[in-house]
Amino acid sequence: MALLYKADPERGRHWQALFARHAPDIEFRQWPDMGNPAEIRYLLAWQPPENLTGCLPALDVLFATSAGVDQFDFSELPDTLSVVRMLDPAIEHGMIEYATFATLWLHRRIGDYARQQREGHWQAHMLRPASEKRIGVLGLGQLGTAIATHLVSYGFPVSGWARTMRDVPGITCHAGQEALDDFLASSDMLICVLPLTGDTRGILNTALFERLPEGAGLINIGRGEHLIEADLTRALDEGRLSGAVLDVLRNEPPPRDHPFWRDERILMTPHIAAMTQPETAFPVLLDNLRRHQRGEPMIGQVDRQRGY
Amino acid sequence: MALLYKADPERGRHWQALFARHAPDIEFRQWPDMGNPAEIRYLLAWQPPENLTGCLPALDVLFATSAGVDQFDFSELPDTLSVVRMLDPAIEHGMIEYATFATLWLHRRIGDYARQQREGHWQAHMLRPASEKRIGVLGLGQLGTAIATHLVSYGFPVSGWARTMRDVPGITCHAGQEALDDFLASSDMLICVLPLTGDTRGILNTALFERLPEGAGLINIGRGEHLIEADLTRALDEGRLSGAVLDVLRNEPPPRDHPFWRDERILMTPHIAAMTQPETAFPVLLDNLRRHQRGEPMIGQVDRQRGY
Repeated sequence: MALLYKADPERGRHWQALFARHAPDIEFRQWPDMGNPAEIRYLLAWQPPENLTGCLPALDVLFATSAGVDQFDFSELPDTLSVVRMLDPAIEHGMIEYATFATLWLHRRIGDYARQQREGHWQAHMLRPASEKRIGVLGLGQLGTAIATHLVSYGFPVSGWARTMRDVPGITCHAGQEALDDFLASSDMLICVLPLTGDTRGILNTALFERLPEGAGLINIGRGEHLIEADLTRALDEGRLSGAVLDVLRNEPPPRDHPFWRDERILMTPHIAAMTQPETAFPVLLDNLRRHQRGEPMIGQVDRQRGY
Repeated sequence: MALLYKADPERGRHWQALFARHAPDIEFRQWPDMGNPAEIRYLLAWQPPENLTGCLPALDVLFATSAGVDQFDFSELPDTLSVVRMLDPAIEHGMIEYATFATLWLHRRIGDYARQQREGHWQAHMLRPASEKRIGVLGLGQLGTAIATHLVSYGFPVSGWARTMRDVPGITCHAGQEALDDFLASSDMLICVLPLTGDTRGILNTALFERLPEGAGLINIGRGEHLIEADLTRALDEGRLSGAVLDVLRNEPPPRDHPFWRDERILMTPHIAAMTQPETAFPVLLDNLRRHQRGEPMIGQVDRQRGY
């Protein structure tokens, strides 16, 4: 029985060593050296190879190396194939670090101070305490819940929104389209951690920005396609938003002439909020491999109808 | 009995309203309208007036509006005058926010990403997990202890150094000159929260930087005079330090031609890490006023020999 790995080659060496040490019964193969395809039952990949069925006829499970699975075209995947998201605790840690950083960046107006530094200008601005800055977390899955819960410890009032109702201690939870207006109206800083689906594509647009308090801040750590990028520029121009921190863009990298490169109101980072770390992801993957071998349900299995 | 307030006039109005509501027996006067000086027993100030003794002959206590009291020249203050630091919880919250922001800024290499954005360059860098980035907190008073304890929650290994031995759960504590080398050698990110005294003035210098791990990061939220500024430039030039976040400078604002304004390896903010907030500082001050009236020791009273 073999697992084929198709993602960053450097990390592949770490994965290989972990399999050799802790699961020698599962043969680890690294794309493109796949050996006999009929032996490959598991694929660990960021993107599956083209013509997956022809290429890997015995495949049982596609394990994503990422928390999101929107890069997969489900219509191209056989119905019998299980798809599993990566629930590496390092992704959660990375997301908490980045979301906290971005929240404090906006809350403490560091973008303004960085610009003032470049302009040679020394000017303090009044500080509103955390208790008066309301945070809204758009998406209350594993990552959104972890971020929301963490930010409460700074004294921010935190609310969250999800498609279906959640119960998260310390967080005001909203659910469904009908609750979106109330949620947005109480979000001085909006953090998008949604999965990318047909329902959420382009959700960060002018109509949504108009329902936020004036001068709100935006943090996108979901996917670039959640945001209508021209709408963000307009909202910043009109002062409806005061600033944004974006870790994901519609095209990565954005084209040379993209206006965000030179927009001082936007801090843009190259999709680095969280990275799967083989050392912490391996135990999670191995647990799922053993579950599959025992015929038990796996953790993080994707509901294809929902898309996550 | 009266209290004279001599600091930011806008905040003075907040203080005045709080005294009127919660302590009407203490008359609040705002500099320079001091009325009869013989009635003034308390001074709440960032800087005392010149010729303090002549000006305020009945003064019992000088309350600083700040956590640090190095702006006072103790040789000019009468021996009988008690000096009390401001232990406003808002200062602690602000310091935790700023220190966390600055730590994550260095840890996640946001300075590099911000520069890449300006240069139109999209490039992710490998992420070392928090568990492999050792933080050293220089100064384990109320603020240093709060910062150190908070940063442990991110998974950073945190150690602290103070003049005398402390016992802080979860923190590796070092004390005294003889322990400074070990402490510095294990500080990938060094956070200075020391009080400014004769012993600590200029402590952040080339000799200290040479004892840090190569490529360490520096955060100064103590006082500008802790840092020999030319030594920081040299350490960055030589790669011994990789970056710095400074909230305090030797001269505030720094002169027009100061090199830090244009140094992209340094993030500089205009002394905004923490601000005393009348709403949260008032109960702390009032408690000390009542203690003084009852003849009890006050909280935060300065030891003039130590200087803090």
